[in-house]
Amino acid sequence: MVSTYAICGIGQAIVDCQANVAFEFLESRDIDIGSMSLVDENEAIRLRKSLDNVMMSAGGSCANSIVTASALGSKCCFIGKVSTDEAGIHFKNSLRDIGCTFSTPPASEGPSTGQCIVCITPDGERTMKTYLGVSGFLYPCDLDEAAISGSQIRFITGYLWNCEFGKETALRAIDIAKGNNRMVALSLSAVFVVERFRPNFIKTLPLIDILFGNESELRSLFECDSVDMCMSKASEVCKIVCVTVGDQGVMVDGKGLLPIFIPAFPVNKVVDCTGSGDSWAGAFMHYYLLGSSILEAATFANVAASMVIGHFGARPKSDFKSQMERYNSTLLH
Amino acid sequence: MVSTYAICGIGQAIVDCQANVAFEFLESRDIDIGSMSLVDENEAIRLRKSLDNVMMSAGGSCANSIVTASALGSKCCFIGKVSTDEAGIHFKNSLRDIGCTFSTPPASEGPSTGQCIVCITPDGERTMKTYLGVSGFLYPCDLDEAAISGSQIRFITGYLWNCEFGKETALRAIDIAKGNNRMVALSLSAVFVVERFRPNFIKTLPLIDILFGNESELRSLFECDSVDMCMSKASEVCKIVCVTVGDQGVMVDGKGLLPIFIPAFPVNKVVDCTGSGDSWAGAFMHYYLLGSSILEAATFANVAASMVIGHFGARPKSDFKSQMERYNSTLLH
Repeated sequence: MVSTYAICGIGQAIVDCQANVAFEFLESRDIDIGSMSLVDENEAIRLRKSLDNVMMSAGGSCANSIVTASALGSKCCFIGKVSTDEAGIHFKNSLRDIGCTFSTPPASEGPSTGQCIVCITPDGERTMKTYLGVSGFLYPCDLDEAAISGSQIRFITGYLWNCEFGKETALRAIDIAKGNNRMVALSLSAVFVVERFRPNFIKTLPLIDILFGNESELRSLFECDSVDMCMSKASEVCKIVCVTVGDQGVMVDGKGLLPIFIPAFPVNKVVDCTGSGDSWAGAFMHYYLLGSSILEAATFANVAASMVIGHFGARPKSDFKSQMERYNSTLLH
Repeated sequence: MVSTYAICGIGQAIVDCQANVAFEFLESRDIDIGSMSLVDENEAIRLRKSLDNVMMSAGGSCANSIVTASALGSKCCFIGKVSTDEAGIHFKNSLRDIGCTFSTPPASEGPSTGQCIVCITPDGERTMKTYLGVSGFLYPCDLDEAAISGSQIRFITGYLWNCEFGKETALRAIDIAKGNNRMVALSLSAVFVVERFRPNFIKTLPLIDILFGNESELRSLFECDSVDMCMSKASEVCKIVCVTVGDQGVMVDGKGLLPIFIPAFPVNKVVDCTGSGDSWAGAFMHYYLLGSSILEAATFANVAASMVIGHFGARPKSDFKSQMERYNSTLLH
């Protein structure tokens, strides 16, 4: 079966607006450090105006993963909704620059392109206020069936469930994938998403080949405190389960085997955690599709995530691919 | 080329006599905790008599590695010298029980079988007093050329250099291996060995395919404080270089590529570090010969070493192979 794409990402097209802030900036606004919450357009505009030196880049959890895989050399496509406004054009060009196909037609009416205001505190932690805008209006009819059926993995983020008809869009994408005997990967995205859509996630789980999440998301999903027990439950139905454990490393399991912890790579200085989990998932899928073992793919994903943490912004830097190739050559020679 | 054995170990045949001691036991005898030094037969007998609950097992750095590889399923043989005494018979039976071939004829005269008195302090650290005995009299004529030329890797420990004609025996074994286009692995063994035979080790290095050591041994070998620089020097001439960094993990490199750190697996409780480095080398060679990548072999060796650290004694426990197979099945499924 010939594949047009390695990975097809289906998610929210959001433009990241990032800036460094002092702890006091968030405290004075009563915003919890490390939180992610949804805001309306006015609040997003107000918050953005109070920031200095804002760096804009195409973002959103799903696109971040796809960009990492593209940067490593995977042929990827992204399905998501932007508006015809300047931010939408920025998003589109940014994906195309890295070699990722993005052909979802932009909405010529309705809300503006989604934006995520990312406030980075001196500890490298990110606090996000997201205005979903038009990104939250991705309908089943927006899905490019040829792209989905021609991809080895279709990657869906839990955030998608939070859109109008998002659940239907996600399930339709899974249907197309399963009908073509393709793999489906799901990122749990955030605890608030898991809490809101728990029954539907549990029902969808047997259709998921690769599940990504962190400890809190997994605990919330199964309403169980023991991560080991959650891993067992998830791995009974999913082929591969990857759960990050803080900045310590990642637990992997699958097929009801044995949960194994793989320690993280040491990072000299945490600059900005934005997108590290997204990069992890993107790198894991890239290496797994290249034929790496679970251990190899997870280790390289650890390295990739450590590189993203070590600089400003959610996106890999220009020397990312060559750096990763150097790691590869030593570890696989 | 058909191989009779996966690994042929050439080293000192020593019986380990292990016991738990209090820190004061060593302090009152002015023995540095964590040190390894050579003693004569009388001192070994005296020290052993002052210990309670001594556990005897066939040991010696090289045999420990070979036993680990055997326990994982590799077909191995060991070349080393014991006496016809009870300890010698104990050593021979112990290797045979685990499926390892040991056919070096025992010495019917001369010193008794070598013994290593291993004092284990409550921190899991091992302090060793070694009486080499007849193990130090392994001559080139003792080498089983068929076994050496029929093995995929011949594994030599630096300790061998410290025997009478040990250097000649080691170099002869390397000669046989190289003449048959086989791989040679060397463990640097200990700083005092490296200090004593540095020029000869440096000269031998280009003949070594896999080099094992720790940071201190590598620093001593190249008389250079920067481990990165030492790694570069070693990897310029060796195909694979594996250097343990305390209990933090291991650095791997080779062919002049890029030194990469692989973090250690977490250990719940350090019980006894005896033989952890030896097990690391044995497990690495086992998995590498099975076709694992450097990363996979090193990670599995980390797991194997963590298992040996978690119990009393230098040898893997009876459930070692099945435990390792469970790790394997998750990490490679």
